[in-house]
Amino acid sequence: MPHAVLPAEKTARSVSIACCQLAPVFGDVSGNMRRSRDALIQASRRGAKLAILPELANTGYVFSSRDEAWGLAETAAGPCVSEWRELAAELDLIVVAGFCEADGDGLYNSAVLLRPDGGQTCYRKAHLWDGEKAIFDVGNHPPPVVETAIGRLGMMICYDLEIPEWTRLPALAGADLLCVPVNWPAQSHPEGERPAEMIKAQANAAFNHLPVAVCDRAGSERGVDWAGCSLITDAKGYVLARASRQDGDCQLILAALDLAASRDKYISPRNDVLADRRPELYRALLDPSR
Amino acid sequence: MPHAVLPAEKTARSVSIACCQLAPVFGDVSGNMRRSRDALIQASRRGAKLAILPELANTGYVFSSRDEAWGLAETAAGPCVSEWRELAAELDLIVVAGFCEADGDGLYNSAVLLRPDGGQTCYRKAHLWDGEKAIFDVGNHPPPVVETAIGRLGMMICYDLEIPEWTRLPALAGADLLCVPVNWPAQSHPEGERPAEMIKAQANAAFNHLPVAVCDRAGSERGVDWAGCSLITDAKGYVLARASRQDGDCQLILAALDLAASRDKYISPRNDVLADRRPELYRALLDPSR
Repeated sequence: MPHAVLPAEKTARSVSIACCQLAPVFGDVSGNMRRSRDALIQASRRGAKLAILPELANTGYVFSSRDEAWGLAETAAGPCVSEWRELAAELDLIVVAGFCEADGDGLYNSAVLLRPDGGQTCYRKAHLWDGEKAIFDVGNHPPPVVETAIGRLGMMICYDLEIPEWTRLPALAGADLLCVPVNWPAQSHPEGERPAEMIKAQANAAFNHLPVAVCDRAGSERGVDWAGCSLITDAKGYVLARASRQDGDCQLILAALDLAASRDKYISPRNDVLADRRPELYRALLDPSR
Repeated sequence: MPHAVLPAEKTARSVSIACCQLAPVFGDVSGNMRRSRDALIQASRRGAKLAILPELANTGYVFSSRDEAWGLAETAAGPCVSEWRELAAELDLIVVAGFCEADGDGLYNSAVLLRPDGGQTCYRKAHLWDGEKAIFDVGNHPPPVVETAIGRLGMMICYDLEIPEWTRLPALAGADLLCVPVNWPAQSHPEGERPAEMIKAQANAAFNHLPVAVCDRAGSERGVDWAGCSLITDAKGYVLARASRQDGDCQLILAALDLAASRDKYISPRNDVLADRRPELYRALLDPSR
């Protein structure tokens, strides 16, 4: 059971992490960057060592065409990512942020993880939601797991988190926390229920004994209302912090997590959630005809 | 997208299904059978076409040794299964029930699906919980998907439902409903939260757009208290019915489900939860070293 014996020495016993729920304004890149900067400064002042921004935090989400998205895209060395990188160094804060990425002929719904030491890891969304299929190219690489001062951080984007195979991959690769920029559209759900997206996020944490931090957006944009349901779970999938407002203001949610505890995968004296898997029986999952 | 075009003609538009939450008494096989019979008759009177009993419904759960379990086990042609088979025919009711199965030298935590026409399908739990590892042999076959008069029924047992790879398999094989006998031990959880097992059940439904019916047990047995959290979800993972009592009495929960709707896997105009999978990127799931 290799997952139970990963070295824990690099992981602080408890670390404060933040999700900065913003309401990006479509196309207002400079305004969105100002809002994200203010939120990251706030998160740092409140003691966070990691702060997550929403999906497509610099541009907004509701593109009318690929051309329109193209006009707002930048490379992973572009001005928005560079500004976040500088802030990460200045604030001694790990930053995870969604942005619209251009690379050659490719256009991606991407997220970047920026370390205070200047290290940078980019991820391209691999499971596209609805209209995104007409806008973006699909990412073809599994979620990265990045070694940082606070632990190993996995990263994926929005609908990716609704594919349990996808969340299993960073867990198997040793992630201590899953960082997930999202833009969840507000949808109706029965009274007394949380939105299904939240339930799926919680369950993914519980399946993998891996805390999940989801940074959603709020407000509305081109007729789409957003759920404003940012949440941070513990390794059991229970909610430690969640956003309460859906309006246009920034809302910071924070939680203290013992990331080293993610490496202990036991949920009973004899049940390790990863070692209990029986991959030899799961072959049909890879069958392309199904 | 083969899953969207499965023939639906065999599936009634709406069918009533029941979970019969009982409190089996350890070792009291004849009493447990009487209680299960009464519950199945009740379920049928209330219009159910399918009724699910808990895991190990005939024997109770807390075996002190393999030998003790062996003494209470029967084959899949044994007296308890036979009695349930006769009831299924008599009541025109599909019955799913957990029992302690002996087969040659093998001892299994099994469930059986019994059709009114006498058809019978057995499943052996493949992911064992805690002390079960010292009692039972492990099943080595994927969850069956059984063609019935009300639709295609998948079946698994308790901790199996906490392995998202396992629930994906019957979804890919065309199941319209997942039937899950469980014995969930009562565990502490934060106020305002449902037990993690319920959240995982709901998420598995939502991931696969596949309703899930979980029949839990209640009461206590040899010092173990049971959660009494039977639930039936819709294909979105929202709870249609759930048990409210943890005491020793039987509680029937019922819900009307349109099982044909499970075959439409679209959750947005362009998102089919099964067709959106990208198996070519999931190969690490089968890596035995992880």
